[in-house]
Amino acid sequence: MHMMSREMQACIDACLSCYQMCFGMAMTHCLEKGGDHVKPKHFRAMMACADICRDSAHMMLMNAPQAQAICKVCAEACEACAKECDPLPDMKDCAAECRRCAEECRKMAGQKMAA
Amino acid sequence: MHMMSREMQACIDACLSCYQMCFGMAMTHCLEKGGDHVKPKHFRAMMACADICRDSAHMMLMNAPQAQAICKVCAEACEACAKECDPLPDMKDCAAECRRCAEECRKMAGQKMAA
Amino acid sequence: MHMMSREMQACIDACLSCYQMCFGMAMTHCLEKGGDHVKPKHFRAMMACADICRDSAHMMLMNAPQAQAICKVCAEACEACAKECDPLPDMKDCAAECRRCAEECRKMAGQKMAA
Amino acid sequence: MHMMSREMQACIDACLSCYQMCFGMAMTHCLEKGGDHVKPKHFRAMMACADICRDSAHMMLMNAPQAQAICKVCAEACEACAKECDPLPDMKDCAAECRRCAEECRKMAGQKMAA
Repeated sequence: MHMMSREMQACIDACLSCYQMCFGMAMTHCLEKGGDHVKPKHFRAMMACADICRDSAHMMLMNAPQAQAICKVCAEACEACAKECDPLPDMKDCAAECRRCAEECRKMAGQKMAA
Repeated sequence: MHMMSREMQACIDACLSCYQMCFGMAMTHCLEKGGDHVKPKHFRAMMACADICRDSAHMMLMNAPQAQAICKVCAEACEACAKECDPLPDMKDCAAECRRCAEECRKMAGQKMAA
Repeated sequence: MHMMSREMQACIDACLSCYQMCFGMAMTHCLEKGGDHVKPKHFRAMMACADICRDSAHMMLMNAPQAQAICKVCAEACEACAKECDPLPDMKDCAAECRRCAEECRKMAGQKMAA
Repeated sequence: MHMMSREMQACIDACLSCYQMCFGMAMTHCLEKGGDHVKPKHFRAMMACADICRDSAHMMLMNAPQAQAICKVCAEACEACAKECDPLPDMKDCAAECRRCAEECRKMAGQKMAA
């Protein structure tokens, strides 16, 4: 088995969970609801968040030297998505998931890494 | 919240779990061990499996009409990867994960879908 | 330089070109236009096509044993997307790109591969 | 047709070209050559560069607010990969492609964007 710090595994889990929430919601709930849910700014925030979360997990899994830099951008995309979801009552779970992931990504981005 | 059948969620979970195992192992354990672990046939089977698993989850999350067809290919890639891992004693967990995922993907591929 | 058959390179080019067209159009033109362009069936066909095209290119680039099977599914996703675009006058370029890519993917899927 | 600035299209082209070079070379030439080509540091630099390039293109295509931040990280991954390729005589084309892409990504990252 390959070694992975507990902190990194927690961040990967948060990223893949947030990716599933944002991408899954965007492509089913938001598309089917229409209206505010498919406004470019909202929908794009959902998709950008989903994509960076998915990619952050990928970079951590490969132990890429740029993983922390990507986690930093990921935290920003998650916060932006949470803010977009706040005004829509049926997107509260999504906003919460985004904030949980942003928190994990900030921890990861701020960490000293083994060389 | 968007609706997702229990079967589909189980398959998404299995795919993302197998993706993490195969991609994470390939890019850390296999690369660091070297030898048989980086032989093109073995390493490529790991990467192909990881990639199709990741993409199958993506297709299911978006409810794509081609999701079942991708799951069918995914089951084949998982079985191929499991067979590649069998002769290497330190890859037993990976082989088991691949077979679990193959099983879920076959179920998904064979299922009647709601229109 | 690594070797790549001319046929495979043509298919990779077509896939990455179709991915750019479908994903780029969906996330800019379709979202901004709204109406029929963000109806779930249309938008999902665009995203599914974009994603399989991107993944087909990935599988070919890594010389994965499942590359041809994915190309076969890709051809179907491209045809489905083209049909979704046909009724919308401003999506003619997208439909044409999808049909070009479907054609390349069918060629690739039907080819005898070197072991 | 959706609008895309000439600068952004040039950067997307460079990213997808560099992705193809790095991922294609890693998964064929490097794996088959073995030795220094599959040393963890070299191989990981290739894969990380390929992945960020692919994702940068994705973020630009969707006009994500974080596209420039990702391009900045991408430029660093490209430079790191180029440095890894420099000592290997058969990787000169790859190093050149990485530097071309790094240059485009720096331009994109430094640009004023339309709101």
